[in-house]
Amino acid sequence: MKHTYSIGIDIGGTNTDMGLVRDDGTIIARSNIPTNAYTVFEPYIHDIMEHISTMMKNNDVQQLEGIGIGAPNGNFYTGCVDNAPNLTIKGVLDFGKEIHKYMDTTVVLSNDANAAAFGEMVYGGAKGMKHFIMFTLGTGVGSGIVVDGKLVHGSTGAAGELGHNILFPEGRMCSCGRKGCLEAYTSARGIVQTFCELRKENGPRECKQGWIPDNVPDSDVSSKMIGDAANAGDPIAIATYEKTGYWLGLAIANSVTFSAPEAIFLMGGPTKVGEPLLKPLRESFEKHLLNIFQGSCSIRMSELKANEVAILGAAALIKMKE
Amino acid sequence: MKHTYSIGIDIGGTNTDMGLVRDDGTIIARSNIPTNAYTVFEPYIHDIMEHISTMMKNNDVQQLEGIGIGAPNGNFYTGCVDNAPNLTIKGVLDFGKEIHKYMDTTVVLSNDANAAAFGEMVYGGAKGMKHFIMFTLGTGVGSGIVVDGKLVHGSTGAAGELGHNILFPEGRMCSCGRKGCLEAYTSARGIVQTFCELRKENGPRECKQGWIPDNVPDSDVSSKMIGDAANAGDPIAIATYEKTGYWLGLAIANSVTFSAPEAIFLMGGPTKVGEPLLKPLRESFEKHLLNIFQGSCSIRMSELKANEVAILGAAALIKMKE
Repeated sequence: MKHTYSIGIDIGGTNTDMGLVRDDGTIIARSNIPTNAYTVFEPYIHDIMEHISTMMKNNDVQQLEGIGIGAPNGNFYTGCVDNAPNLTIKGVLDFGKEIHKYMDTTVVLSNDANAAAFGEMVYGGAKGMKHFIMFTLGTGVGSGIVVDGKLVHGSTGAAGELGHNILFPEGRMCSCGRKGCLEAYTSARGIVQTFCELRKENGPRECKQGWIPDNVPDSDVSSKMIGDAANAGDPIAIATYEKTGYWLGLAIANSVTFSAPEAIFLMGGPTKVGEPLLKPLRESFEKHLLNIFQGSCSIRMSELKANEVAILGAAALIKMKE
Repeated sequence: MKHTYSIGIDIGGTNTDMGLVRDDGTIIARSNIPTNAYTVFEPYIHDIMEHISTMMKNNDVQQLEGIGIGAPNGNFYTGCVDNAPNLTIKGVLDFGKEIHKYMDTTVVLSNDANAAAFGEMVYGGAKGMKHFIMFTLGTGVGSGIVVDGKLVHGSTGAAGELGHNILFPEGRMCSCGRKGCLEAYTSARGIVQTFCELRKENGPRECKQGWIPDNVPDSDVSSKMIGDAANAGDPIAIATYEKTGYWLGLAIANSVTFSAPEAIFLMGGPTKVGEPLLKPLRESFEKHLLNIFQGSCSIRMSELKANEVAILGAAALIKMKE
């Protein structure tokens, strides 16, 4: 059987990762360039296209099904990245137009969390599902929502921003400038803030092996350290994830009232801690789920590998028939 | 031009309203039976079908495009009403099956708020819109969500329950048994509770013409009275709607993060008060809306008449091509 191929591009503030993806979901070649080395769009695209061309030649691929791009502030309808605050290349970036100067192929762009959700549907644990939601936890909290087998892009192309659902009115300051967003509580940064607040409340303590010592300043604490400490029995770290799980479980239960998904998928660094997060999360989810949805929705981890999901998700976007 | 006709049935706990609807959205005949006079399903359907038959005969209508039904706990996928707590007829009620004993026609059923949303799209202010959300305020708070021109029913058929989004974790007791739902704050009952709490805090007062006198017991206060009092300058009633508008504006801003609708529609008794609700609602909405959605979504009142929306919405359901 003859295979088809596509390109997935994951645009981050630091790196731009590219992969040549076979239709069975195997990444047969990878490459990357430093996004933050560019301030002008044209040379950035030029270099991306050179890397794509090299990957295709090296693997004897003559034709692509298309190029899928996952990007912060990526707008599905326009194919543009609109003024992404974390990119060194400023303005409205029309990827489709610029790429077509080099290659005549389908270009589909969406935001990174949407791409992750679509990747889960095409290549991961959401195969065959018509209704699910993906929450991506990292520096921020993103989401991708699938209704009737299609990504919800909404009237503007920017739907699916559940990280900015306000969980606590007038609550914690969020990076978006408003207060009380889910992201302010359950992103990596939010988790660190919770830990630092809790250990301040708790006062000085004697730390066992694997706990986070008092002399590590707040600015050096990471969510990864808190996760490791929680699994080593650090009670402040455990309490941090108990709160985080409670908040995230509540937010997930709220999201179910919208689209009644059959599953919620989780991915991203902070979810890797495992049971210290997942146990309170499941309890909170059950407690806060409206009775008519009891038993209809499961919470699952992404089945895609952490280092592949962004590229597979981006590549999957071109499978979107709309 | 030859017209086509459909039947819209709105099932409430007290009354079952039926209407014969022409394809231009005119209700050419109406009829009703008392729902709570029945405890058995078969005679209830028998009487509904007799009323339908009479309406058709009287208006010389030989054929129907279909029968649309809006009902509490109505499940679009199964065509059944599942154990609706406010109906005297208990159990799982299969309307399609029972109606087909009398007439061979399309039967489509959904919950009442979904029907209202669909009615707005087919006959009202949402004509041509692909993405919008309808909030219905009454005894409870319901919602109907349209994404890509289709009602969101989700994996269970029960999606679109934004009245049970938790606005304040561990907040007010809701009728659903959980705490802090939007419905507990912005339904007619929630508005009454807010008023009673505020006047208790405020203490005894001298009331002017049109205000709600202190000697009206809590149990006799209605949201309609509070609305009239607010428009007569009653400061406690005004403060009640200021809070209600703040809460609803926040909840609406949250719903935008999900599907990026181009409009939010409002309907139901408590919205009739006008500016005392709408001014704080708009302010809260603007304040809580994520910056990327600024200017993309308007808040509008339903354009269907209050006494027609339920029947038109139900009748509109049969226009759903899925």
